[in-house]
Amino acid sequence: MELLKVLNERYATKKMNGQVVPEDKVEAIIEAARMAPTSSGLQPFKVIVITNKELKEKIVTISFNQTQVVDCSHLLVFAAWDNYTTERITQMLDYTVDQRGLPVGTMDDYKNRLLSIYGTRDAELNFIHAAHQSYIAFGMAIAAAGELKVDATPMEGFDADALDELLGLREQGLRSVTMLPLGYRDAENDWLVNLKKVRRPKEDFVFTLD
Amino acid sequence: MELLKVLNERYATKKMNGQVVPEDKVEAIIEAARMAPTSSGLQPFKVIVITNKELKEKIVTISFNQTQVVDCSHLLVFAAWDNYTTERITQMLDYTVDQRGLPVGTMDDYKNRLLSIYGTRDAELNFIHAAHQSYIAFGMAIAAAGELKVDATPMEGFDADALDELLGLREQGLRSVTMLPLGYRDAENDWLVNLKKVRRPKEDFVFTLD
Repeated sequence: MELLKVLNERYATKKMNGQVVPEDKVEAIIEAARMAPTSSGLQPFKVIVITNKELKEKIVTISFNQTQVVDCSHLLVFAAWDNYTTERITQMLDYTVDQRGLPVGTMDDYKNRLLSIYGTRDAELNFIHAAHQSYIAFGMAIAAAGELKVDATPMEGFDADALDELLGLREQGLRSVTMLPLGYRDAENDWLVNLKKVRRPKEDFVFTLD
Repeated sequence: MELLKVLNERYATKKMNGQVVPEDKVEAIIEAARMAPTSSGLQPFKVIVITNKELKEKIVTISFNQTQVVDCSHLLVFAAWDNYTTERITQMLDYTVDQRGLPVGTMDDYKNRLLSIYGTRDAELNFIHAAHQSYIAFGMAIAAAGELKVDATPMEGFDADALDELLGLREQGLRSVTMLPLGYRDAENDWLVNLKKVRRPKEDFVFTLD
Protein backbone atom coordinates (compact mmCIF):
# COMPACT_ATOMS: atom_id res chain seq x y z
CA MET A 1 0.00 0.00 0.00
CA GLU A 2 1.40 3.33 -1.07
CA LEU A 3 0.30 5.18 2.09
CA LEU A 4 1.96 2.66 4.42
CA LYS A 5 5.15 2.84 2.41
CA VAL A 6 5.09 6.62 2.68
CA LEU A 7 4.40 6.58 6.42
CA ASN A 8 7.27 4.16 6.98
CA GLU A 9 9.71 6.22 4.95
CA ARG A 10 8.91 9.74 6.13
CA TYR A 11 10.31 11.24 9.32
CA ALA A 12 10.17 14.51 11.21
CA THR A 13 13.12 16.26 9.59
CA LYS A 14 15.27 18.01 12.18
CA LYS A 15 17.66 19.84 9.85
CA MET A 16 16.83 21.21 6.40
CA ASN A 17 19.22 22.42 3.72
CA GLY A 18 17.41 25.44 2.28
CA GLN A 19 16.67 23.87 -1.11
CA VAL A 20 13.45 25.17 -2.65
CA VAL A 21 10.44 22.89 -3.12
CA PRO A 22 8.85 23.29 -6.57
CA GLU A 23 5.54 25.14 -6.51
CA ASP A 24 3.61 22.27 -8.06
CA LYS A 25 4.60 20.03 -5.17
CA VAL A 26 3.66 22.64 -2.58
CA GLU A 27 0.32 23.01 -4.31
CA ALA A 28 -0.30 19.27 -4.31
CA ILE A 29 0.49 19.11 -0.58
CA ILE A 30 -1.97 21.90 0.16
CA GLU A 31 -4.50 20.26 -2.14
CA ALA A 32 -4.34 17.09 -0.02
CA ALA A 33 -5.11 19.21 3.04
CA ARG A 34 -7.99 20.87 1.19
CA MET A 35 -9.48 17.52 0.20
CA ALA A 36 -9.32 16.11 3.74
CA PRO A 37 -12.65 15.19 5.32
CA THR A 38 -13.93 17.38 8.15
CA SER A 39 -16.93 17.33 10.46
CA SER A 40 -20.05 18.33 8.51
CA GLY A 41 -17.76 19.32 5.64
CA LEU A 42 -17.17 22.73 7.19
CA GLN A 43 -13.38 22.83 6.77
CA PRO A 44 -13.06 25.18 9.74
CA PHE A 45 -9.43 26.17 9.21
CA LYS A 46 -7.04 27.71 6.73
CA VAL A 47 -3.50 27.09 5.58
CA ILE A 48 -1.10 30.00 5.49
CA VAL A 49 2.01 29.80 3.29
CA ILE A 50 5.15 31.68 4.28
CA THR A 51 8.38 31.90 2.28
CA ASN A 52 9.65 35.31 3.32
CA LYS A 53 13.03 35.03 5.04
CA GLU A 54 12.54 37.93 7.47
CA LEU A 55 9.16 36.60 8.53
CA LYS A 56 10.53 33.08 9.02
CA GLU A 57 13.34 34.55 11.14
CA LYS A 58 10.78 36.22 13.37
CA ILE A 59 8.83 32.98 13.67
CA VAL A 60 11.85 30.88 14.62
CA THR A 61 12.34 33.04 17.70
CA ILE A 62 8.88 32.04 18.94
CA SER A 63 9.37 28.38 17.93
CA PHE A 64 12.05 27.33 20.44
CA ASN A 65 14.61 28.10 17.72
CA GLN A 66 13.72 25.06 15.67
CA THR A 67 15.84 25.85 12.65
CA GLN A 68 13.57 24.08 10.15
CA VAL A 69 11.37 27.17 10.39
CA VAL A 70 14.06 29.22 8.62
CA ASP A 71 15.80 26.48 6.63
CA CYS A 72 12.58 25.22 5.08
CA SER A 73 11.44 26.24 1.64
CA HIS A 74 7.78 26.87 2.49
CA LEU A 75 6.38 27.14 5.98
CA LEU A 76 2.75 26.07 6.25
CA VAL A 77 0.71 27.27 9.21
CA PHE A 78 -2.58 25.52 9.97
CA ALA A 79 -4.95 27.92 11.72
CA ALA A 80 -8.42 26.96 12.94
CA TRP A 81 -11.54 29.07 13.29
CA ASP A 82 -11.69 30.78 16.66
CA ASN A 83 -15.39 29.87 16.77
CA TYR A 84 -18.23 28.42 14.73
CA THR A 85 -20.57 31.24 13.82
CA THR A 86 -23.93 31.36 12.08
CA GLU A 87 -22.35 33.22 9.20
CA ARG A 88 -19.55 30.72 8.70
CA ILE A 89 -21.81 27.67 8.90
CA THR A 90 -24.43 29.22 6.64
CA GLN A 91 -21.83 30.22 4.05
CA MET A 92 -20.43 26.70 3.71
CA LEU A 93 -23.78 24.91 3.62
CA ASP A 94 -25.19 27.39 1.11
CA TYR A 95 -22.09 26.89 -1.01
CA THR A 96 -22.52 23.10 -0.81
CA VAL A 97 -26.17 23.28 -1.87
CA ASP A 98 -25.20 25.54 -4.74
CA GLN A 99 -22.32 23.30 -5.89
CA ARG A 100 -24.58 20.27 -5.82
CA GLY A 101 -27.26 22.03 -7.84
CA LEU A 102 -29.85 21.38 -5.14
CA PRO A 103 -32.86 23.60 -4.48
CA VAL A 104 -32.16 26.50 -2.13
CA GLY A 105 -33.05 25.48 1.41
CA THR A 106 -32.34 21.75 0.88
CA MET A 107 -29.92 21.65 3.80
CA ASP A 108 -31.82 24.00 6.11
CA ASP A 109 -32.79 21.31 8.63
CA TYR A 110 -29.20 20.18 8.81
CA LYS A 111 -27.99 23.75 9.07
CA ASN A 112 -30.36 24.46 11.95
CA ARG A 113 -29.17 21.36 13.73
CA LEU A 114 -25.55 22.49 13.42
CA LEU A 115 -26.44 25.99 14.54
CA SER A 116 -28.21 24.59 17.61
CA ILE A 117 -25.11 22.59 18.52
CA TYR A 118 -22.38 25.13 17.83
CA GLY A 119 -24.37 28.24 18.62
CA THR A 120 -24.90 27.18 22.24
CA ARG A 121 -21.36 26.04 22.91
CA ASP A 122 -18.64 28.39 24.07
CA ALA A 123 -16.02 29.65 21.65
CA GLU A 124 -13.15 27.75 23.25
CA LEU A 125 -14.88 24.37 22.81
CA ASN A 126 -15.78 25.29 19.26
CA PHE A 127 -12.17 26.26 18.56
CA ILE A 128 -10.97 22.91 19.95
CA HIS A 129 -13.41 21.11 17.68
CA ALA A 130 -12.22 23.13 14.68
CA ALA A 131 -8.61 22.41 15.65
CA HIS A 132 -9.38 18.66 15.75
CA GLN A 133 -10.50 18.87 12.13
CA SER A 134 -7.34 20.72 11.16
CA TYR A 135 -5.27 17.78 12.43
CA ILE A 136 -6.87 15.51 9.83
CA ALA A 137 -5.78 17.90 7.07
CA PHE A 138 -2.39 18.35 8.73
CA GLY A 139 -1.96 14.57 8.53
CA MET A 140 -2.94 14.51 4.87
CA ALA A 141 -0.37 17.23 4.11
CA ILE A 142 2.30 15.21 5.93
CA ALA A 143 1.42 12.10 3.93
CA ALA A 144 1.29 14.07 0.67
CA ALA A 145 4.73 15.54 1.30
CA GLY A 146 6.06 12.05 1.97
CA GLU A 147 4.61 10.72 -1.25
CA LEU A 148 6.23 13.58 -3.18
CA LYS A 149 9.60 13.02 -1.47
CA VAL A 150 9.40 16.41 0.14
CA ASP A 151 10.64 16.50 3.72
CA ALA A 152 8.49 18.01 6.43
CA THR A 153 8.43 18.54 10.17
CA PRO A 154 5.09 18.34 11.96
CA MET A 155 5.37 21.01 14.63
CA GLU A 156 3.33 22.07 17.64
CA GLY A 157 6.21 23.57 19.59
CA PHE A 158 5.70 27.28 19.12
CA ASP A 159 4.04 30.16 20.93
CA ALA A 160 0.65 30.15 19.25
CA ASP A 161 -0.48 33.45 20.76
CA ALA A 162 2.69 35.18 19.59
CA LEU A 163 2.33 33.66 16.12
CA ASP A 164 -1.31 34.79 15.92
CA GLU A 165 -0.17 38.28 16.83
CA LEU A 166 2.71 38.29 14.34
CA LEU A 167 0.55 37.05 11.45
CA GLY A 168 -2.56 39.03 12.40
CA LEU A 169 -4.60 35.83 12.56
CA ARG A 170 -7.00 36.80 15.34
CA GLU A 171 -8.32 39.69 13.28
CA GLN A 172 -9.31 37.09 10.71
CA GLY A 173 -11.02 34.90 13.28
CA LEU A 174 -8.23 32.33 13.18
CA ARG A 175 -5.90 30.77 15.75
CA SER A 176 -2.72 28.94 14.81
CA VAL A 177 -2.64 25.23 15.70
CA THR A 178 0.27 23.54 13.94
CA MET A 179 3.10 24.35 11.54
CA LEU A 180 4.60 22.24 8.78
CA PRO A 181 7.93 23.39 7.35
CA LEU A 182 8.47 21.86 3.90
CA GLY A 183 11.90 21.41 2.42
CA TYR A 184 14.72 18.94 2.06
CA ARG A 185 16.82 17.24 4.69
CA ASP A 186 20.38 18.20 5.49
CA ALA A 187 21.21 14.56 6.13
CA GLU A 188 24.72 15.18 7.45
CA ASN A 189 23.47 17.45 10.18
CA ASP A 190 20.14 15.80 11.01
CA TRP A 191 20.44 13.78 14.24
CA LEU A 192 17.20 11.90 13.59
CA VAL A 193 17.64 10.82 9.98
CA ASN A 194 19.45 7.56 10.73
CA LEU A 195 17.66 6.59 13.92
CA LYS A 196 15.10 3.80 13.81
CA LYS A 197 11.48 4.88 13.47
CA VAL A 198 9.72 3.72 16.61
CA ARG A 199 6.02 2.99 17.00
CA ARG A 200 4.20 1.13 19.74
CA PRO A 201 3.87 -2.58 19.03
CA LYS A 202 0.45 -3.58 17.70
CA GLU A 203 -0.57 -5.25 20.95
CA ASP A 204 -0.12 -1.94 22.72
CA PHE A 205 -2.04 0.03 20.08
CA VAL A 206 -5.14 -1.94 19.14
CA PHE A 207 -7.50 -4.28 20.95
CA THR A 208 -10.68 -6.09 20.07
CA LEU A 209 -13.87 -5.94 22.09
CA ASP A 210 -16.33 -8.63 21.24
CA MET B 1 -0.51 11.52 -6.74
CA GLU B 2 -2.06 8.43 -5.19
CA LEU B 3 -3.22 10.18 -2.01
CA LEU B 4 -5.02 12.93 -3.89
CA LYS B 5 -6.75 10.38 -6.10
CA VAL B 6 -7.88 8.50 -2.99
CA LEU B 7 -9.13 11.65 -1.26
CA ASN B 8 -11.07 12.64 -4.34
CA GLU B 9 -12.70 9.23 -4.70
CA ARG B 10 -13.58 8.41 -1.08
CA TYR B 11 -16.73 9.70 0.59
CA ALA B 12 -18.46 9.39 3.96
CA THR B 13 -20.58 6.35 3.25
CA LYS B 14 -24.10 6.80 4.57
CA LYS B 15 -25.45 3.29 3.97
CA MET B 16 -23.45 0.07 4.12
CA ASN B 17 -24.44 -3.40 2.88
CA GLY B 18 -23.10 -5.68 5.59
CA GLN B 19 -20.37 -7.25 3.43
CA VAL B 20 -17.33 -8.30 5.44
CA VAL B 21 -13.98 -6.56 4.93
CA PRO B 22 -11.08 -9.05 4.71
CA GLU B 23 -8.90 -9.10 7.82
CA ASP B 24 -5.73 -8.18 5.92
CA LYS B 25 -7.35 -4.94 4.77
CA VAL B 26 -8.56 -4.11 8.26
CA GLU B 27 -5.05 -4.75 9.54
CA ALA B 28 -3.51 -2.48 6.91
CA ILE B 29 -5.94 0.29 7.81
CA ILE B 30 -5.05 0.01 11.50
CA GLU B 31 -1.38 -0.18 10.56
CA ALA B 32 -1.67 3.20 8.80
CA ALA B 33 -3.12 4.64 12.02
CA ARG B 34 -0.31 3.06 14.03
CA MET B 35 2.34 4.56 11.74
CA ALA B 36 0.87 8.08 11.91
CA PRO B 37 3.12 10.74 13.42
CA THR B 38 2.18 12.11 16.84
CA SER B 39 3.54 14.78 19.15
CA SER B 40 6.80 13.58 20.73
CA GLY B 41 6.03 10.14 19.29
CA LEU B 42 3.84 9.30 22.28
CA GLN B 43 0.88 7.85 20.33
CA PRO B 44 -1.48 8.79 23.15
CA PHE B 45 -4.51 6.81 21.96
CA LYS B 46 -5.68 3.35 21.04
CA VAL B 47 -7.86 1.81 18.38
CA ILE B 48 -10.63 -0.55 19.44
CA VAL B 49 -12.06 -3.02 16.92
CA ILE B 50 -15.66 -4.16 17.24
CA THR B 51 -17.42 -6.75 15.06
CA ASN B 52 -19.93 -8.20 17.52
CA LYS B 53 -23.49 -7.63 16.32
CA GLU B 54 -25.08 -7.18 19.74
CA LEU B 55 -22.42 -4.68 20.77
CA LYS B 56 -22.83 -2.73 17.52
CA GLU B 57 -26.58 -2.67 18.11
CA LYS B 58 -26.03 -1.12 21.50
CA ILE B 59 -23.66 1.45 20.03
CA VAL B 60 -26.04 2.52 17.28
CA THR B 61 -28.57 3.61 19.91
CA ILE B 62 -26.03 6.11 21.29
CA SER B 63 -24.93 7.19 17.79
CA PHE B 64 -28.07 8.99 16.60
CA ASN B 65 -29.08 5.72 14.93
CA GLN B 66 -26.51 6.06 12.19
CA THR B 67 -26.99 2.65 10.62
CA GLN B 68 -23.39 2.32 9.41
CA VAL B 69 -22.55 1.40 12.99
CA VAL B 70 -24.48 -1.88 12.61
CA ASP B 71 -24.17 -2.39 8.84
CA CYS B 72 -20.42 -2.02 8.84
CA SER B 73 -18.06 -4.96 8.88
CA HIS B 74 -15.62 -3.63 11.50
CA LEU B 75 -16.25 -0.65 13.74
CA LEU B 76 -13.08 1.17 14.77
CA VAL B 77 -13.18 3.39 17.84
CA PHE B 78 -10.35 5.87 18.36
CA ALA B 79 -9.91 6.57 22.07
CA ALA B 80 -7.38 9.02 23.49
CA TRP B 81 -5.58 8.98 26.82
CA ASP B 82 -7.58 10.74 29.52
CA ASN B 83 -4.32 12.35 30.65
CA TYR B 84 -0.57 12.34 30.12
CA THR B 85 1.03 10.70 33.15
CA THR B 86 4.62 10.21 34.22
CA GLU B 87 4.22 6.48 33.81
CA ARG B 88 2.83 6.71 30.27
CA ILE B 89 5.47 9.17 29.06
CA THR B 90 8.30 7.27 30.70
CA GLN B 91 7.14 3.95 29.24
CA MET B 92 7.12 5.26 25.67
CA LEU B 93 10.43 7.11 25.86
CA ASP B 94 12.16 4.17 27.53
CA TYR B 95 10.75 1.91 24.81
CA THR B 96 12.07 4.30 22.14
CA VAL B 97 15.55 4.37 23.66
CA ASP B 98 15.52 0.57 23.86
CA GLN B 99 14.32 0.14 20.27
CA ARG B 100 17.02 2.49 19.01
CA GLY B 101 19.72 0.68 20.94
CA LEU B 102 20.72 3.88 22.72
CA PRO B 103 22.28 4.01 26.20
CA VAL B 104 19.73 4.05 29.03
CA GLY B 105 19.02 7.65 30.00
CA THR B 106 19.73 9.10 26.54
CA MET B 107 16.32 10.77 26.38
CA ASP B 108 16.11 11.81 30.04
CA ASP B 109 16.43 15.54 29.36
CA TYR B 110 13.68 15.33 26.77
CA LYS B 111 11.56 13.20 29.09
CA ASN B 112 11.92 15.72 31.90
CA ARG B 113 10.93 18.52 29.56
CA LEU B 114 7.77 16.64 28.56
CA LEU B 115 6.97 15.83 32.17
CA SER B 116 7.33 19.48 33.10
CA ILE B 117 4.88 20.47 30.34
CA TYR B 118 2.25 17.75 30.74
CA GLY B 119 2.63 17.21 34.47
CA THR B 120 1.62 20.78 35.26
CA ARG B 121 -1.34 20.94 32.89
CA ASP B 122 -4.80 19.81 33.86
CA ALA B 123 -6.12 16.48 32.65
CA GLU B 124 -8.75 17.99 30.35
CA LEU B 125 -6.16 20.00 28.39
CA ASN B 126 -3.93 16.95 28.19
CA PHE B 127 -6.85 14.87 26.93
CA ILE B 128 -7.58 17.47 24.24
CA HIS B 129 -3.96 17.37 23.16
CA ALA B 130 -4.03 13.57 23.02
CA ALA B 131 -7.29 13.71 21.05
CA HIS B 132 -5.66 16.10 18.54
CA GLN B 133 -3.02 13.45 17.86
CA SER B 134 -5.68 10.78 17.39
CA TYR B 135 -7.18 12.82 14.56
CA ILE B 136 -3.95 12.50 12.57
CA ALA B 137 -4.17 8.72 12.85
CA PHE B 138 -7.91 8.81 12.18
CA GLY B 139 -7.14 10.63 8.93
CA MET B 140 -4.50 8.08 7.97
CA ALA B 141 -7.00 5.26 8.56
CA ILE B 142 -9.54 7.06 6.35
CA ALA B 143 -6.97 7.46 3.58
CA ALA B 144 -5.80 3.85 3.94
CA ALA B 145 -9.38 2.57 3.66
CA GLY B 146 -9.84 4.66 0.54
CA GLU B 147 -6.69 3.29 -1.05
CA LEU B 148 -7.87 -0.27 -0.32
CA LYS B 149 -11.34 0.45 -1.76
CA VAL B 150 -12.92 -0.12 1.61
CA ASP B 151 -15.72 2.29 2.43
CA ALA B 152 -15.68 4.19 5.70
CA THR B 153 -17.62 6.83 7.58
CA PRO B 154 -15.68 9.27 9.74
CA MET B 155 -17.96 9.82 12.73
CA GLU B 156 -18.04 12.15 15.69
CA GLY B 157 -21.79 12.05 16.19
CA PHE B 158 -22.18 9.77 19.20
CA ASP B 159 -22.49 10.05 22.95
CA ALA B 160 -18.85 9.68 23.95
CA ASP B 161 -19.57 9.35 27.67
CA ALA B 162 -22.11 6.60 27.03
CA LEU B 163 -19.69 4.81 24.70
CA ASP B 164 -16.90 5.04 27.28
CA GLU B 165 -19.26 3.49 29.82
CA LEU B 166 -20.42 0.75 27.46
CA LEU B 167 -16.88 -0.22 26.45
CA GLY B 168 -15.32 0.28 29.88
CA LEU B 169 -12.83 2.75 28.44
CA ARG B 170 -12.46 5.06 31.43
CA GLU B 171 -11.17 2.20 33.58
CA GLN B 172 -8.37 1.89 31.02
CA GLY B 173 -7.61 5.59 31.12
CA LEU B 174 -9.15 6.18 27.69
CA ARG B 175 -11.90 8.42 26.31
CA SER B 176 -13.56 7.81 22.96
CA VAL B 177 -13.02 10.53 20.37
CA THR B 178 -14.11 9.27 16.94
CA MET B 179 -15.50 6.17 15.26
CA LEU B 180 -14.79 4.75 11.83
CA PRO B 181 -17.16 2.07 10.56
CA LEU B 182 -15.48 0.07 7.78
CA GLY B 183 -17.49 -1.81 5.17
CA TYR B 184 -18.95 -1.50 1.72
CA ARG B 185 -21.49 0.91 0.36
CA ASP B 186 -25.11 0.03 -0.34
CA ALA B 187 -25.09 2.33 -3.35
CA GLU B 188 -28.81 2.04 -4.07
CA ASN B 189 -29.73 3.28 -0.63
CA ASP B 190 -26.95 5.76 0.00
CA TRP B 191 -28.22 9.32 -0.48
CA LEU B 192 -24.71 10.77 -0.61
CA VAL B 193 -22.99 8.42 -3.05
CA ASN B 194 -23.94 10.31 -6.20
CA LEU B 195 -23.75 13.83 -4.87
CA LYS B 196 -20.81 16.00 -5.84
CA LYS B 197 -17.94 16.16 -3.36
CA VAL B 198 -17.70 19.75 -2.22
CA ARG B 199 -14.66 21.48 -0.82
CA ARG B 200 -13.96 25.16 -0.35
CA PRO B 201 -12.31 26.77 -3.35
CA LYS B 202 -8.55 27.24 -2.97
CA GLU B 203 -8.85 30.99 -2.56
CA ASP B 204 -11.01 30.40 0.50
CA PHE B 205 -8.66 27.79 1.99
CA VAL B 206 -5.11 29.02 1.57
CA PHE B 207 -3.37 32.37 1.61
CA THR B 208 0.18 33.58 1.41
CA LEU B 209 1.78 35.96 3.87
CA ASP B 210 5.00 37.50 2.64
